[in-house]
Amino acid sequence: MRIGWALLMTVMVMASTTAEQEPQLLRLMPWPESVKNVSGSGRLIIGNSFSVSVSAGANPQLRRAVAIFLDDLRRHTGSLPLDFAFSESGTGQLQISVDHASKEVQELGEDESYGLEVAASAATLKAPTTLGAMRGLQTFLQLVEITPQGFSIPAVVIQDKPRFPWRGLMIDSSRHFTPIDVVKRNLDGMAAVKLNVFHWHLSENQGFRVESRRFPKLHEMGSDGLYYTQEEVRDIVSYARDRGIRVVPEFDMPGHSTSWFVGYPELASGPGPYSIERKWGVFDPAMDPTRESTYKFLDGFIGEMAKLFPDEFFHIGGDEVNGKQWDANARIQQFMRAHSLKTNADLQAYFNERVQKIVAKHGKTMEGWDEILRPDLPKSIVIQSWRGQKSLADAAQQGYRGLLSSGYYLDLINPTSQHYAVDPFTGPTASLADADKQKILGGEACMWAEYVSAENIDSRIWPRMAAIAERLWSPQNVTDTNSMYARMDEIGRWLDAYGLTHNTARNFMLQRIAGAADISALQTLVDVVEPVKGYSRYDLASSEPTALTALNRLIDAAPPESLFARHFSMLVDAFVAGQIKPGMEIEIRAALSNWKDNAENLGPLAEKSSLVQEGLPVSQNLSALGAAGLQALDYLDRGERAPENWKNTQIALVNQAAPPKAQLLIMVGAPVQKLILAAASSGANAPLPAASTK
Amino acid sequence: MRIGWALLMTVMVMASTTAEQEPQLLRLMPWPESVKNVSGSGRLIIGNSFSVSVSAGANPQLRRAVAIFLDDLRRHTGSLPLDFAFSESGTGQLQISVDHASKEVQELGEDESYGLEVAASAATLKAPTTLGAMRGLQTFLQLVEITPQGFSIPAVVIQDKPRFPWRGLMIDSSRHFTPIDVVKRNLDGMAAVKLNVFHWHLSENQGFRVESRRFPKLHEMGSDGLYYTQEEVRDIVSYARDRGIRVVPEFDMPGHSTSWFVGYPELASGPGPYSIERKWGVFDPAMDPTRESTYKFLDGFIGEMAKLFPDEFFHIGGDEVNGKQWDANARIQQFMRAHSLKTNADLQAYFNERVQKIVAKHGKTMEGWDEILRPDLPKSIVIQSWRGQKSLADAAQQGYRGLLSSGYYLDLINPTSQHYAVDPFTGPTASLADADKQKILGGEACMWAEYVSAENIDSRIWPRMAAIAERLWSPQNVTDTNSMYARMDEIGRWLDAYGLTHNTARNFMLQRIAGAADISALQTLVDVVEPVKGYSRYDLASSEPTALTALNRLIDAAPPESLFARHFSMLVDAFVAGQIKPGMEIEIRAALSNWKDNAENLGPLAEKSSLVQEGLPVSQNLSALGAAGLQALDYLDRGERAPENWKNTQIALVNQAAPPKAQLLIMVGAPVQKLILAAASSGANAPLPAASTK
Repeated sequence: MRIGWALLMTVMVMASTTAEQEPQLLRLMPWPESVKNVSGSGRLIIGNSFSVSVSAGANPQLRRAVAIFLDDLRRHTGSLPLDFAFSESGTGQLQISVDHASKEVQELGEDESYGLEVAASAATLKAPTTLGAMRGLQTFLQLVEITPQGFSIPAVVIQDKPRFPWRGLMIDSSRHFTPIDVVKRNLDGMAAVKLNVFHWHLSENQGFRVESRRFPKLHEMGSDGLYYTQEEVRDIVSYARDRGIRVVPEFDMPGHSTSWFVGYPELASGPGPYSIERKWGVFDPAMDPTRESTYKFLDGFIGEMAKLFPDEFFHIGGDEVNGKQWDANARIQQFMRAHSLKTNADLQAYFNERVQKIVAKHGKTMEGWDEILRPDLPKSIVIQSWRGQKSLADAAQQGYRGLLSSGYYLDLINPTSQHYAVDPFTGPTASLADADKQKILGGEACMWAEYVSAENIDSRIWPRMAAIAERLWSPQNVTDTNSMYARMDEIGRWLDAYGLTHNTARNFMLQRIAGAADISALQTLVDVVEPVKGYSRYDLASSEPTALTALNRLIDAAPPESLFARHFSMLVDAFVAGQIKPGMEIEIRAALSNWKDNAENLGPLAEKSSLVQEGLPVSQNLSALGAAGLQALDYLDRGERAPENWKNTQIALVNQAAPPKAQLLIMVGAPVQKLILAAASSGANAPLPAASTK
Repeated sequence: MRIGWALLMTVMVMASTTAEQEPQLLRLMPWPESVKNVSGSGRLIIGNSFSVSVSAGANPQLRRAVAIFLDDLRRHTGSLPLDFAFSESGTGQLQISVDHASKEVQELGEDESYGLEVAASAATLKAPTTLGAMRGLQTFLQLVEITPQGFSIPAVVIQDKPRFPWRGLMIDSSRHFTPIDVVKRNLDGMAAVKLNVFHWHLSENQGFRVESRRFPKLHEMGSDGLYYTQEEVRDIVSYARDRGIRVVPEFDMPGHSTSWFVGYPELASGPGPYSIERKWGVFDPAMDPTRESTYKFLDGFIGEMAKLFPDEFFHIGGDEVNGKQWDANARIQQFMRAHSLKTNADLQAYFNERVQKIVAKHGKTMEGWDEILRPDLPKSIVIQSWRGQKSLADAAQQGYRGLLSSGYYLDLINPTSQHYAVDPFTGPTASLADADKQKILGGEACMWAEYVSAENIDSRIWPRMAAIAERLWSPQNVTDTNSMYARMDEIGRWLDAYGLTHNTARNFMLQRIAGAADISALQTLVDVVEPVKGYSRYDLASSEPTALTALNRLIDAAPPESLFARHFSMLVDAFVAGQIKPGMEIEIRAALSNWKDNAENLGPLAEKSSLVQEGLPVSQNLSALGAAGLQALDYLDRGERAPENWKNTQIALVNQAAPPKAQLLIMVGAPVQKLILAAASSGANAPLPAASTK
């Protein structure tokens, strides 16, 4: 039997209770600037004959946006393609008016504000631009819920606008390829949480992912056949634009570029030949910044890509050049001396200046990672910071615009609360002058792809991305973590409607791991573990992982954050603090008891499957924790102070369970330790009030 | 807490036990003609470097088939696009040889046989044709399982060939449109169970679904914009062909054709104007068989479609003409008298003869439903029988080929065992002379689409389709129902890898119905109910369902067959027969107790949702059954014979729970009744052995 689900639900309820200090918990994420819940004013019913009309400002963008909105509404209500109506005029139950169309090619900083008023009879959505109307339509959708009257939405008055103009998600489609349908469903998810930039990392040592007609050996020899045709790119750009999302391509140079050199070794600073890199890390190959032919090539290439990607910004990467090929090349050394370039950083700055001129020539604004920032570059460029707020503040004071990605790296497998606490304006950026603050455009979450496949990438992005989206959209004072978790949980399930697999892929993967239908023991285990954090997966690997290493293990199926463990910790905190509610101890005992039995329950599966087998040491540690916790409760129930040697033995078990096994961390060690300490503490010799609830 | 899952697992184990009377239960469906499990000979390991080579007969079809196979293998092992290798020559771990390529356009009756030998070191797949190799590759895939050595397949020797040359699935994409991705994933599923005909029902009163460049008003005015472009059709045909599946289009005429008349009212026998039909049923509009312009139109149209669909067969429907428009049209009546056509059937026969000549002129063989069978038509035509074996036997004796669909209508929501028991050779067809038997080509399951959407169509097709596929492929003596259910359950989960949603859509739909994450009470209910059967959904509807009626209710989420109820029945049968095993009574009690509490548990959800609310009467009946069953067990446990008036009261409750509520049937009434009768029977006054297991 799984008890996980029931426990998880209690997380929801507890969190909701906190959030209900706001008038009513609405399933909205990002939370709007202003929400008034007009309680007692009834609800607008969404029946099969629900209709939308445009009362002012109809334009083709808006028509497409409404068509997409109605499709989305059908998914969220189980309605059919012929349900709901749209008319340019008339009085629909939802009446939209916009002042003017948004730009044909979406631009940074366009007005995205909107006002939404819902009454029982009708709703009105007013926005200065089509883009604002799109954001308001997403808010409308999030409010749809099943009620005793069928699907309906509550009476509300919402005024809303984003805090930052650049709210992005970067997907690395190079280290592992992202199929088109995966990109599209993630764009759906992005639109749902009002993100507006899809930063597409398209070239890397491990793969060059776009068809180049000008330099076809780039994709023919650099991609293993896994690349996007230009037609597919145009399709994605159009799909994104219809959802109010800009697409910023990144072609990383001069480093991170081995895959370019497979077909064009003459671009490199070393002799070659080159093959597509299969390992992870920072590698030596780098473009040769000293040859005119390099710039001629880049002029041709950037010219071609500038046409394919209509956005104003063009990301040239520019990160992590180790300089070894430059050091080893006598001709390059000679060039540096001749041009008074003292360091490799100087040489890269020279390269960047040249590239910036090419990018500008093709009508684009250059963007790059922290490393590109050098005073010689024009103030128009944008710095994407993986280093942090200090780096951004320095850039802003020098007059450069920037966006924050440090703190938003989804591949580091950190808890949502950690990302949620990262604000573009903290520390060095918080104390900037107002004019300099304007230079901070927003932020971007980054999904680097060493350890994600088409199968589990959604689970690394969602639902955590929704919380980061809130950080970048909502007022700075929207920081209640419990409310965030409660709403994120709901939005996470709600995103299932778009075919995102963050919830559904897990069971499929666990059943494949087990080779069995009954995976309850495996689920119990996976419910309380998390993959190792940061770069430990690489560091801890017994054999070096490569681009060919299957991503089919427990670590690949386990979600980045154990909400179950978070809930259990909260329960234990309340319990040891004496804030005990009816049922609380029973719930804690049920979880501990389930863990205690886990190694035994998992045994039969482990015997059948090598992929379960590797999880057995984790399971054994979990069983030990379960047993320790139960003993602690027994002491507490009896009002008997646990002996010191018992405590020491149990703490040793907790410590033993702490290091990762199978690259998985058990997340319930700390609360079990709290129970042990409570049992052994001096206050434990009087029966706790909880004993009566047993 | 859900106990459903654990119970269901026991079904598996029980069924496996039965099937283990075969040497070892292999996850194979359809079951091959001959399987030898070479136990003790080790297993072939499928690692990341697994490779396939073609030792003889390489051809482009085979290359594509191997590429698809490797993709499938990646899904089933969680491997990546760069894993596994294919070489034309050399010695792969799987070596394929074929004698010759299959036909460029797949034909009826091509050789599909193959032999597969797997040893620990390597596997060989030999087939006369590429098509046979495709079938063998599917068998190989089904054998892949996780083991202590990683993914591997057991040593086996398999010889296999199909029993019937025509094994099909018809999808009605007209009553509700089937999006392209849904069609494709169903083609994947079809290929997995060795089906070879996709019969595509493309026109109906409710919609005309293919772009016609010659008569564009067909799709422009007859489809609500929901149609397949010719490019999409070609894509589907090619996708199917790469998987060894023929695509037979059906354009239903002269009836079932209202959607044609919206754009071309001159084709009809009544005055018009026409609009797309929204209701379900048989309607009056029919083509005018008396005007030459009708045949001129059909000549143009069939000529266009004959090029688009390369298969030899062209299905003209021909069913259910009610003749009312013909009766009401004086000109048509005059024509009938002039041509000595006495009945509307005669008139339709005249129409069919004319159409057959057109179909033949464009190089195709005509196929149609039973009604087209008239002695004047050439013997080449094929009859698809919705009427049954008698109809087929009659046709065969007249020299016509036929295939069986009666008994395979998936939309009637019958249990798998019922379909599985339907054999093309039973009754009238069984006693045919051998030469006439050759005329029976096989069968086709039919997925009529009144009550399926893109969201739940997979759950109506799968996994039941797999059992019908076995009936049409495997030897006639493969009839063990327990083995079938056990293997179907495994294959059903295994098909998840293709993105089929028969398992995953349910939770999504239930969560939407409940508007909540914790749907355990709803799942308990849905686990033991089935949608009403046959055409009752229409008959029982409180308001007439149409093409616009949302398919978002409990009846739409409930699977066609309750495997949980099947298992519970088996448990109770054993229990009342005294064949009691340890744990059995506990399991029965747990289920009953869960049901007893269901109405109370479902209450809070029902208060919040109109879609749950309608299920409450079902839940109340289920609770009554649970309570009755528990009381019966109490009597049995005490060795006390239940009083007659108690029995009568309980049987009345069972009877009260029998009629459908919310168009759902509770499937556990019969076993609960057995418990009641056992408690009240004369043999019940001695304690049952089971009492000791409590």
